[in-house]
Amino acid sequence: MAAELSPQDLRKRIRNGQWTQPTSGASKGFIQANLVMMPQEQAFDFLLFCVRNPKPCPILDVLEPGRFEPAIAPGADLRTDLPRYRVYENGQLKTEIENVSHLTHSGMVSFLLGCSFSFENAMLAAGLPIRNIEEGKNVSMYVTRRDCRPAGPFTSKLVVTMRPMTPAQAVRAVQITTRFHLTHGAPVHIGDHREIGIRDLDRPEFGDPVTIRPGEVSVFWACGVTSQLAATSLPLPLVITHSPGYMFVSDLKDEDLTIL
Amino acid sequence: MAAELSPQDLRKRIRNGQWTQPTSGASKGFIQANLVMMPQEQAFDFLLFCVRNPKPCPILDVLEPGRFEPAIAPGADLRTDLPRYRVYENGQLKTEIENVSHLTHSGMVSFLLGCSFSFENAMLAAGLPIRNIEEGKNVSMYVTRRDCRPAGPFTSKLVVTMRPMTPAQAVRAVQITTRFHLTHGAPVHIGDHREIGIRDLDRPEFGDPVTIRPGEVSVFWACGVTSQLAATSLPLPLVITHSPGYMFVSDLKDEDLTIL
Repeated sequence: MAAELSPQDLRKRIRNGQWTQPTSGASKGFIQANLVMMPQEQAFDFLLFCVRNPKPCPILDVLEPGRFEPAIAPGADLRTDLPRYRVYENGQLKTEIENVSHLTHSGMVSFLLGCSFSFENAMLAAGLPIRNIEEGKNVSMYVTRRDCRPAGPFTSKLVVTMRPMTPAQAVRAVQITTRFHLTHGAPVHIGDHREIGIRDLDRPEFGDPVTIRPGEVSVFWACGVTSQLAATSLPLPLVITHSPGYMFVSDLKDEDLTIL
Repeated sequence: MAAELSPQDLRKRIRNGQWTQPTSGASKGFIQANLVMMPQEQAFDFLLFCVRNPKPCPILDVLEPGRFEPAIAPGADLRTDLPRYRVYENGQLKTEIENVSHLTHSGMVSFLLGCSFSFENAMLAAGLPIRNIEEGKNVSMYVTRRDCRPAGPFTSKLVVTMRPMTPAQAVRAVQITTRFHLTHGAPVHIGDHREIGIRDLDRPEFGDPVTIRPGEVSVFWACGVTSQLAATSLPLPLVITHSPGYMFVSDLKDEDLTIL
């Protein structure tokens, strides 16, 4: 079972080409991360962007230029251990590939940022609905009207995920996700989507729309895709990210990053 | 009363030379911060050091090179609004002065890091003893044997503060300080000081020794002085920090930074 695979075994399968699917549900209980690689010349400003926007861009690990073995997964290699990568040149998506060893160089800095899979497990354990999982879909993601705090040349609108639930469930979800402050933490908005500049919940910018039942409210969390928008908001010669859903799986457990 | 001064008024008095004392107890309820200024060439590595060591070096604000007005205190000027600064050249303390406008330049990056004054207020409000305040002393600070996670060329041993209290009070102190994760958060150690490499509690490396009463245990928190040791561990041409106790007072309230 994929859920029982150790992170080490999962990464080995990915590296050997035996695992090419999304990582959702794999190595359950271990922290999965967003990846952004960029030239060291912009790394200070991008690190600053993440520090200033900790809800969408919670920093799990940042590596020195030319290093690809993260402290949160000894023995791993960020150039080979994700199932799929996106390669951007001059801010434009060029290709999606399964290995970026031939593209990376000694002047690249790698960022690993928290992902909401961690608190989804905790919410499921508490009996809260994760509609997109119930419906076998990707989570709904929207670009809001809210500006992130800029840093140097980097800017982005805040991207959010949305999960519908009853008001009582929303209160419980606030409690549970607050503990996971390094994987997006508490919601950034509850209720009227128009207040944060979302026109139509049926048309998410990324992922799939899900069913909202009578009596349910929309609950919005900051989303790691924000970091990809920021990283590709400049025409940098080379930026590499994970492909959405094809995350880096670390050796940290979900509970290692909780505040309480 | 100094405690009732607004942060804006306090900073104005400091700027005008009307306030030259330590900031402990001033503008009560507002976040005070450690300051480190250094050349932009090392700023990425130092930011990385702070990110990797969030307990001793919790980041409140980092400014772009040549900027001195922090987001957490609009209108303030980091070159004039602290009562006293330390100036290091090539890793050596050169002077302590009350204004650094003539030394700073467009290539300097300023870091503001959390300070334990915030949780001290909360502990006092909960009836817990802060022995150094009771005895009118500076808090006891010790250099431990524990290594921080290095970043680029920056390294440091972990520096801690110590406050003695009963075991029951220590439990309550863990609860209270956990909420203040951006101002050092929960303790890093409780009990035997030798376990973390402190030889003699009566001889702190910084600050003053305090009385430990029968039945009390030593409770240790990560300390912002760690950032000063790291910043001056290299022979950088110019590093400027606040003088211990002469902090930057921001417009953020203590409660703005709590996790719960």
